[in-house]
Parts: sequence; C-alpha cells; structure tokens
Amino acid sequence: MILSALLTSVGINLGLCFLFFTLYSILRKQTGNVFVYAPRLVDKQKSEQQGDDFNLERLLPSASWVRRAWRISEEDLLSISGLDALVFTRIFIFSVKVFTFGGIIGIFILLPVNYLGNQLSIDDFYDLPNKSLDSFSISNVNDGSNRLWIHFSAAYIFTGAVCYLLYCEYLYISSKRIACFYSSKPQPHQFTILVRGIPSTCGRSFSEIVESFFMEYHSSTYLSHLVIHQTSRIRGLISDAEKLYRRLARIKSENHSKQNFKRDGFLGLFGRKVNLLDHYEKKLEDLEDNVRMEQYSLAGEEVPAAFVSFKSRFGAAVALYIQQGVNPTEWVTERAPEPQDVHWPFFSASFIRRWFYKLLGVVACIALTILFLIPVVVVQGLANLNQLGIWFPFLKGILSLTVISQLITGYLPSLVLQLFLFFVPPMMILFSSMQGYISLSQIEKSACTKVLYFTIWNIFFANVLSGSAFYQVNVFLEPKNIPRVLAEAVPSQASFFISYVVTSGWTSLSSELFQLIPLLCSLIRKLCSRRDGDEFEVPAIPYYCEIPTILFFGLLGVTYFFLSPLILPFLLIYFCLGYIIFRNQLLNVYAPKYETSGKFWPVVHNSTIFSLILMHVIAIGIFGLKKLPLASSLTIPLPVLTLLFIEYCRKRFLPTFKNYPTECLIKKDREDQNDPCMDEFYGKLVTAYRDPALMPVHYARNDDRRNSPLLHSEF
Amino acid sequence: MILSALLTSVGINLGLCFLFFTLYSILRKQTGNVFVYAPRLVDKQKSEQQGDDFNLERLLPSASWVRRAWRISEEDLLSISGLDALVFTRIFIFSVKVFTFGGIIGIFILLPVNYLGNQLSIDDFYDLPNKSLDSFSISNVNDGSNRLWIHFSAAYIFTGAVCYLLYCEYLYISSKRIACFYSSKPQPHQFTILVRGIPSTCGRSFSEIVESFFMEYHSSTYLSHLVIHQTSRIRGLISDAEKLYRRLARIKSENHSKQNFKRDGFLGLFGRKVNLLDHYEKKLEDLEDNVRMEQYSLAGEEVPAAFVSFKSRFGAAVALYIQQGVNPTEWVTERAPEPQDVHWPFFSASFIRRWFYKLLGVVACIALTILFLIPVVVVQGLANLNQLGIWFPFLKGILSLTVISQLITGYLPSLVLQLFLFFVPPMMILFSSMQGYISLSQIEKSACTKVLYFTIWNIFFANVLSGSAFYQVNVFLEPKNIPRVLAEAVPSQASFFISYVVTSGWTSLSSELFQLIPLLCSLIRKLCSRRDGDEFEVPAIPYYCEIPTILFFGLLGVTYFFLSPLILPFLLIYFCLGYIIFRNQLLNVYAPKYETSGKFWPVVHNSTIFSLILMHVIAIGIFGLKKLPLASSLTIPLPVLTLLFIEYCRKRFLPTFKNYPTECLIKKDREDQNDPCMDEFYGKLVTAYRDPALMPVHYARNDDRRNSPLLHSEF
Repeated sequence: MILSALLTSVGINLGLCFLFFTLYSILRKQTGNVFVYAPRLVDKQKSEQQGDDFNLERLLPSASWVRRAWRISEEDLLSISGLDALVFTRIFIFSVKVFTFGGIIGIFILLPVNYLGNQLSIDDFYDLPNKSLDSFSISNVNDGSNRLWIHFSAAYIFTGAVCYLLYCEYLYISSKRIACFYSSKPQPHQFTILVRGIPSTCGRSFSEIVESFFMEYHSSTYLSHLVIHQTSRIRGLISDAEKLYRRLARIKSENHSKQNFKRDGFLGLFGRKVNLLDHYEKKLEDLEDNVRMEQYSLAGEEVPAAFVSFKSRFGAAVALYIQQGVNPTEWVTERAPEPQDVHWPFFSASFIRRWFYKLLGVVACIALTILFLIPVVVVQGLANLNQLGIWFPFLKGILSLTVISQLITGYLPSLVLQLFLFFVPPMMILFSSMQGYISLSQIEKSACTKVLYFTIWNIFFANVLSGSAFYQVNVFLEPKNIPRVLAEAVPSQASFFISYVVTSGWTSLSSELFQLIPLLCSLIRKLCSRRDGDEFEVPAIPYYCEIPTILFFGLLGVTYFFLSPLILPFLLIYFCLGYIIFRNQLLNVYAPKYETSGKFWPVVHNSTIFSLILMHVIAIGIFGLKKLPLASSLTIPLPVLTLLFIEYCRKRFLPTFKNYPTECLIKKDREDQNDPCMDEFYGKLVTAYRDPALMPVHYARNDDRRNSPLLHSEF
Repeated sequence: MILSALLTSVGINLGLCFLFFTLYSILRKQTGNVFVYAPRLVDKQKSEQQGDDFNLERLLPSASWVRRAWRISEEDLLSISGLDALVFTRIFIFSVKVFTFGGIIGIFILLPVNYLGNQLSIDDFYDLPNKSLDSFSISNVNDGSNRLWIHFSAAYIFTGAVCYLLYCEYLYISSKRIACFYSSKPQPHQFTILVRGIPSTCGRSFSEIVESFFMEYHSSTYLSHLVIHQTSRIRGLISDAEKLYRRLARIKSENHSKQNFKRDGFLGLFGRKVNLLDHYEKKLEDLEDNVRMEQYSLAGEEVPAAFVSFKSRFGAAVALYIQQGVNPTEWVTERAPEPQDVHWPFFSASFIRRWFYKLLGVVACIALTILFLIPVVVVQGLANLNQLGIWFPFLKGILSLTVISQLITGYLPSLVLQLFLFFVPPMMILFSSMQGYISLSQIEKSACTKVLYFTIWNIFFANVLSGSAFYQVNVFLEPKNIPRVLAEAVPSQASFFISYVVTSGWTSLSSELFQLIPLLCSLIRKLCSRRDGDEFEVPAIPYYCEIPTILFFGLLGVTYFFLSPLILPFLLIYFCLGYIIFRNQLLNVYAPKYETSGKFWPVVHNSTIFSLILMHVIAIGIFGLKKLPLASSLTIPLPVLTLLFIEYCRKRFLPTFKNYPTECLIKKDREDQNDPCMDEFYGKLVTAYRDPALMPVHYARNDDRRNSPLLHSEF
C-alpha cells in the first residue's frame, strides 16, 4: 500500500465517521428514535417530558452530547452505570495514555529513523505520496545499522512506561473496588454462598441435610438456605405461556384500536377474532395450570445444590474460603452471584459432570478457534465465479460484467468472513454457558477471554502467518523458531493492519454510535405498525464483544509500536472516538444487568502484558534478522522482566479482585449492626435466591382483567 | 550388553547384598555399634539393658530383624515413627504392587513377543547366553508387525492399573491423614499461624500493631502472639559458645580420666591444662555475657513478622484462609510449622525480598540442573591418562600398566560423577532454604522435588540424549520432535539402566542398611578414644535424598515397562529390599524430626504420572518408528486421559493435603472444650514459638558445677 492510498482511505473513513456523527446528532433528537438512542431515559420514564412538537432545532446537528459525554465526572458515571462501566471507560483512558506516549516516541523518533534507511528501495526520496508504507517501517532500516539501537532503547522505554501505567491503573481500579464495597448498601450476594455437591443421606432431603450441616458448623452466623430445584421443564412451559400472553396482548390491543376507529366494521371478521381470543385464552389458562402442577410436583425434585445465606458478610466468607467437608468434592462452596445475575438454566450439579462440561467447553472453543478458517475458506471457494456460473447458469451473463465480477471476487470473500465472525461471540457465550458457570457475568467474562483468543488467532496470526490452520499450529509447536517466523511475517503486514484500523476500527465504532441493528428493528416495527414500547428492554453492554475488539486494537498498537509507528496516530483517534462514544451510550443506552465491580480488568491487564511479550519476541527475531545479534540477546531480559512484573501484580492486586479482606468485611458488618433496616433486609434475603421458575404465575384472567378491562366489559 | 554379562553382574551384586545383610546381621548385635545401628533405642535409654558380655550368638548372623521389619503392623509403625514414615514405606508397597502387575504382563507376554521378533539379528535362536539384551526389547520386534498391538494394549492396561493403584493409594493416605488429625493431641501448630508483612505504623511497635489488629478483627478467638526478632548475630555467638563448651567438656573429661588413672602424672603438664581450662572458662563466660547483652539489646529489633496463636483450630483457620488486610502483600498469613520445625536463620520478611530470593533459588536450581554435566565432563577430561602424565611426570611409569590405565579410564570418570552427585542434595537444600521457607519440612519437600528433577534430567535424559546440555535443552525446545527423538534414544539405553538398577540400586540400598558413613565416623571416634555418646544425635531420615532415588527407579520401571520388560524383576527385587531395609532403619535408626502428615505423597503421585506420560510419549514415537502409525495415533488419547486423571485427583485429594476442613476442625475443637488439660496447653502455647536464640543461656559455671562437680571440688 502506498501513502496516497492510505490517505485516501483515511479521508473516506473520516468522512464516514463525520457523517455518522452528524446523522446521530440529528436522529437522536427525533422522539420516534428515543427507544433506540435513549432507552435508559425511557426506562426512567423521563421521555414523557419530551414534547412531540416539530421545530427546526431538531433537524440541526449539535455537538452538545459530545461535550456532555466528555465532561461527565467519573463519580457520576459510577453512580449511573456502576464500576464495570467505569472500568470499561478506563480501558480507553489507559490506551490513550499508552499510545500518546508511544506515539510521541514512534512518530518523532522511530519514524524518521525508519524513513532515512534505504534497505527496501533507493527510489526518489522526495516522492512522498508514492512511497510504500513499508518505507516507514523497521524493514527499511539497513541491516546491521547502529540505528537499530534506537529501536532497542525504544522497546525498553516503552515497556517500562506501559508497565508503570498498568501498575497505576491496577492500583486505581483496585482501590475503587474497595471504595465501592465500603459505600455499598447490604446486598444479598454479599451474605450468600452457593453450595454444591451436597452429599445425599438416605431418607433425608437435601434441604434437611443443608440445614443440619450449617446449624452444626456455622451456628452463630447461619441464616437460611434455598435448595435448588430442577426446573428446566417449567421454564419451557413458562416461556410458552409468555409468548402466548404477548400474542394475546397484541391481538387485544389491535382489536381495541379497531374498535375505536372501526366501530361499524365487518362483524363476521370481528367475531372470528373474538373466537381466536377465546381459544388463546383457554390455551393460556391450560398452560398456567400445567405450570402450577409442575411447580407443585417438582417441589420434591431437589438438586444437590443450595444458596446458603448468613447473618454477616464475614460469616459467608468463612464458609466460602474454608473447605467444608472432608471430601473436597462435597460441600463445594462458591461465591453467590447477584440474584438477577444467576444463570438458572444450566444447573448440572454433579462434580464430575460439571467438570466434563467445563472441559468440553474448552475443547470446543479451541477447535473453533483453530479450525474456524477452514469452513470460511471452503464457503469462499464455493462463492467464486466459476462455481456460481456452474450452479446458476442463468447468472452467467451477469457474471461476465466486469463490475459484478470484481464485486464478487473482491467483496464476497470478506463478506463471508464477516458473516462467520458475526456468529463467533454468541457461540463463545454458548460454550461458556455449557461450562457450568452459575452467573451471566461469569459466562460473559469467560466468553470475553475466548473471543479475545479467537480474535488474536484468527485476525492477527491468520493474517501474519497466512497459511493453513495446521501450518499456524505447527509454528507454535516449534517454539525456538517463533521469533524468526514472526519477525519475518509481522512487519510486512503493517499496512494491512493500518488500513484495518482505519476501515474496520473507526467504522465499527461509528456503527456502535449509530446502533444500526436496533435502528433497523425499530423501523421494521414501525412498518408493522407496532409501537416500540412492546417487548421493550434496555440493552446491557455486551462486554464480551466490545472488550476483545478494543484489546485487539491495543495489541496491534503495542506490537507495531516499534515496527511501524505509523499505526499509532490512527489508533489514538480510535481510542479517543471510543472514549466519547461509549461514555455517551453508557449514559443513554446501556443499563448494567449485573455488577462484577471491575472483574474484567485483569483480562485487560493480562492482554496488555501478552501484547508486550509478543512485541519482545518479535524484537528478538527482528534484531536477529537485521544482523544485530547483540541487540537480539540483550532483548531477552525484557520478556523475563515483564513476566516478573505480571507475577508481582498477580500477587499484589489479583486477590483484591477475587475476595474482600477480613478488614473490609468486618468493618462493613459492624456498620450494619447499628442499622435498623437490617431486619427488613434479612427478611428479603431469605427469598432473594428463589428460582423465578418457581414463582407464582398470573398470565390469564387476573392480569388480563387488570390490563384491559375495557375489552372484557364489552362482552 | 549380552545376557551372560548381565547374569554375572546380577550374581556379583546379589552376593554383595547377601554379604552386607550377613555383616549387618552380625555387626548390629555388637554393643559398640549400637550408636550406629540403633540410635533410637539408645535415645530411649533401652540400650542400658543390653549386656556387654561376649557370647557366640553375637557372632552368628540371624534374620530375626528381617522378620520383625516385615511383620510390624502399620499402626505400630505409625505410632513409632509417624505418618511421614508410613507414607514413605507406602511408596515401596505401591511400587511393589505396580511392578508385580507390570512384571507379569511384561515377562510373560511382552518379553516372549520381543524375543520372537527378528528385527535386530538373525543369529542363532538358541544361543541364549550370548544374546544381546536388546533382543528382549521392543527394538527386536519387526517393523510394521501386528504384534505391536500387544504392546499397544499393554500400555493401555498398565496405565489403567497404575492409575487405579494411584487412586487407591491417594484415598488411603488422605483418609489416614484425616484419621491422624482426629486422633492427635492438641499441638501448638494447629492453633497458630505465621503473619508476615505487618504494616509499620509510626510510633508503634510491631507487637502493638499485631495485638490491636487481631483484637479488633478476631477478638473472640485471638489468644497471643510472638513477634519475631532479628537474631542471626546471637545465633552466631551461641554457636561459638556451644563449640567452646563442648571443647571444654572434652578437656575436662580427659583430665578426669587422667586423674583416675594417672593421679601421679606429670604435674607441670597438668598445671598447664588447668590454666587452659581457666582460659576457656573465662572465654565462655565472656561469650555468655555477650549473648545476654545481645539478647537484651535486640529486644527492640523486631521483624515485621509474628506467630499468632488462637484459642481454637477453627479460629486459626479463619485467619489463615481469608485475606486479612486490604493490601494483599500485607498481613500475609501462612500456616505455622511445628515449633521444632521452624527454620529461624532465614527470616527475611519483606515481601519483595522473599519473592526475589524465591526466584533466585529456582534460577540457581535450573542452572545447576542444566549445566551440571559441564564441570563434571571438564574434570573427567582432566583426569584422563595423557593429562595426568603431563601434570605428574613421575606417574608415567605406573600409568603405562594396563591394569592401572584401565582402572583410571574405566572407573575414574564415574567416580568423579558420583563425587559431584554427592554434593547435589545439600546444594538443593541450600537453594531451598534460600527461598525463604520457614520450616525444615518445607525446605526438605522443596529440595526433594528439586533433587528429583535433577536426577531425571542428569541421569535419565543425560544418558538417553547423550550429548551436550544445550543439545538436550534444544530437544525440549522443539516439542514436536520429542516423541521421535526419545523413541530413537530410550530403548537403546535399556541395558545400561538394567545394569544401573542392579549395581547402583541394590548397592545403594545395602549401604543404607550398612550405614557406611556413620560406621566409619564411629570407628574414627573410637580411634580418637572418644565415646560415641559425645555429640550424639539420632539422625532423621533424609526424605529429600531417599524419595527422589526411589522415584527415579519407579520412573525407569514405568518408562521401560513395554520397551524392555527385562528390567522389571530387578526393580521388584530393589523395592522388596527397600521395603525391608527402610522399615527396619525407621524402627531402629531414624527418628522423625518433624511431621508433615504425608505431605510428601503428592510428589510421589505427580512423579508417577510424569513417568506414565513419558512412557506414552515414547510409545507414540516408537509406534511411528515401527511403521504402525495407526497405533501411534491411537496412543494420543492415553496421555490426555492421564492428564485428566491427575486433574481429577488434584481436585479430589490435594485440598486434603493442604488444609483440614471445617468439619474436622470444629469437631476437634468441640472435643477440647471438655478437656481440663486445655488451660495448661494454652499456657504452653503462649511461649511455644519463642526463638531459641532468645532463651536464657547457661553454659559456664552453673552448668559445669552440675555436670562435673568432682573436677571443681579438686580445686
């Protein structure tokens, strides 16, 4: 790729971004889009205050939202969206810091050094627009040149700076985590643990066994327990009932509007609808009875797992951290998730089974990651011109047109890849939920790591080591050759990744702002003349999709920092854009569905360290290739020191992200002792972890009568 | 090596063993050797009952000790030597079981199959004595022969059997561990934890900080604490004083005997001795004063670490397993070792420093393991004939003799290797104690693993991959090639390892029985006319030396099981011998210095699993080499399944070897509640972890007056 081509691409994509920003600035003000662009406000029913009047201001773009997003303080963001959201925006702040520092070194020191080399070509020095981007990369520095020592020093300085920033950020987030804990109100999950592997005793129910065990060994702190039931069948029935209920509600509302406007409508048709209504209502009633019967009959079908609540946080911690039973596979304790975060469907309780599924999930994920490109390549192969011509002979005429053929050969393969990529995060969620995690947050965190590995493998390594999956795996089976192979392959892909940042990075962010899919859904709903309020739900930010993408761009930046510093300004723009856009869509769109108090941060930390070490490995290889073996050897301490740093951080910070210490727990417990609300809280705690499938159901008559009395009064 | 040579070697070594057994059977009955062969009995002062009379029976070998060693029940052994000793003998029982099973398959099925092949040679089938041992190994099976499927099945069956036995053994030992805990009396280390990284606060001593912290957060269970002091200087002084005291005691006892027998001795000499005595006594007094002054002045020099005792085991566990402070590197808790097991010298307390030393220990150990052979080879090179001839020209005449030259070239290199090997366990102990472990047991356990790695690397791999250290490391940097390289190299070393088992294995065991070095020491002491009772100490079994050796022989057996089953009967003899010998030297010689309650077992378990996986890797390689790629592929699930098995065991059993569960702790605590002795125990607990260096010293006058009143009354 030559410089002018890159500049053209940059221009087009900047234009697109500007267009998206402008369109968003206008569209967000239209009341009809409020469900797309401000569902959180709708949820708070603030939207009602907005008028539906037309005025010119609504058609003019304004940047007030950018200002607001930029200015809102971290405390406000914390109170609105929780610590997870704050940590999410910290990824951008951290990346901006890293790449500002890296960018200054890269652009003002390394880039000129690279450009002054003449390893690649000795063509016209001043013909800048037609220069290949490779002229700005390390490949252009002459072999054996002493200038490479500048790159060597840059690698050390940059690593030091990144580690320092990582340390500060870890310290900041862990202190925030403790502060949030101190300022939190009593919450059920702080007082509750999940116990699995309850040993069965002849003639006693699990409930009795749990009661007697905790009364025996935790008599002073034990409060209550709820044994988990096998409720997959009930859940199926309830889901059917809900669907039917919604359909019924829609039919009724349609009838209702028809009644208002077509009072003298065709009676026969109307009568048929009433019959249909009766039919559905009868069916719903039956379903509801079924649910009730199942709930009643399942009362005995216990699973050897239970949520056990304690009177104090410290009491729960004591039961959590000390092995309970003699057999370590029995009475296995685990921190309870927040009640709304519990993932009920998969409550496979046996130790061996959970273990097997866990393994299966890992194997499936590895298989998908390694073998992903095979079906993609096959489908892309099928989508080529000749194949299409053979399969659909009538297309032959069209296919012979140059524009069409170029479009198909140039665009279809990447479309197919994108289409396949689209399904990866849901699949990873599926694999993670197979692994027996008990909460959505755990599943998403696990899927986040999986998607990250997937992205690094199938976008970074697949492009760098262009070749079959087995060739790639092969490279990693010969660890000695890794530095050489990477050093040969990585720099040559610099221009690809620069254009990837510009096209995919910027555009994907703008589409995030634009909320393309919800916008389309909203339009379709409008075309079907249904209101947005039907089936309305405030979306939760899909961390498992977003974080891997952002981290992948971070990886590109760190890896290419000294290979081809040209990438850094583009990444800086990406992270600045991301910072504004996500702070905005956290304020208006996304609502937290759960709160892990920043447990995603260690993923970010480890990923950055991985990027650094990848950079070091490539550095070792490249100094070897560039005939400066001394620099190559002197780089070896760098990854070792970095590994020591991660090990230190693991000891210094990671425990804070896993447990709360005695000091905090007891302080919080003492605060509660004087709180008069605690009795009420204990009352709620006892039922907090009730399976929603075992709650009483009221879909049919009662509800209907309340919701649509007018309709019923007609008959 | 040919069969007849092996049989000769077996004959010689069996004869040697028999000789050692006979000599031991006679020597053990001599009263003079009681300090060598029954120091435990001496310690119990039972030796006094033995008469010193001469009788014929004392010169006749008897096998009663074999019978007793064989017959003693596990309960008796447990009560005499503790669980560690029992676990140690279980290694032999386990190995005997494994190799009996393996031996039956190997000798009766695999060996004939190997012998019937004719890959290696087509010489005379019936010329058995001149057959190479390789004819009995898998190398002799024809390439591509379907008979290899027998080996394939044997590998699966043997792995299954070993895993089953491992499971049973783990279950047995973990249940013993719990049973021992239940039957134990209250012991200080059950109620105590070690706290490190006490945060310093201006103007308050560590003792005050600890007191206030535990009074605040563990008020109901906290009993007392002892802050650790920096006492390395005092320890130096005390050690000097002890040496001086011993010297003084010896001089006095010599004088005393001279007085008895030479009352009219040369008075001048006698007078000089008295002056010397006075001088020494004055010096000892000074030293003692110094010690007291140091003890007094050091009272303030606290280290940020303390032993904290609790009123109950559960109270200690709660403080142990839950992170105490907000900063995870402060208030770091650790299980307290038994008081006599504490390793006082190295109490480096800062988190970073301990961490650095830990790392340094690992690096030193890896360096020693990988580079060990380099100095050995260099020294061996210097010890060759030409070099000796050049350095010591006067030896040239002797060196030209065939016998001498053969002895030097054939024997000296292995002697040099053995000499170097001799220093390895002490060095590993040094590295482990550098790593900041706080107890001898932890140091020995860590050294045990290190010596094991060392042995596997420098005896197994160095022989198999005969070549430079870097060549060996290189092999492991290309994991893909490992199966092929090992499959080519390992079978050819079968005869070497068979003779290694016969010569080194059997002889080293017999020397264990024979206690060569203590016997020599005892002889030397007798020649110096000093009694054995001086400086007498019952030795503790050096697990870190013994266990790696035994495990290494186990590794040989597992690895060669299907490659060259001829090794199995020799190993079986080794383990049977070991079983008798160690059960005997546990009864009479070794006294436990500490009790880890079988914490060594996981090392045995993991080492066996490692051997199995090594066998699988070699199997994969060898089926490939033997042109049976299907068998090679079908072997791949075997290591995977084995790894799953170890992972399962890790979850099922390992926690039991780390912690005692709530159930046990609370049950034991409740038992104690009704025990009237507990108040007395608490009283002792408060001072149990006092640094011996801070105890009052009494070497000079007082002690002397009591010990040797006669001498003093003379003056």
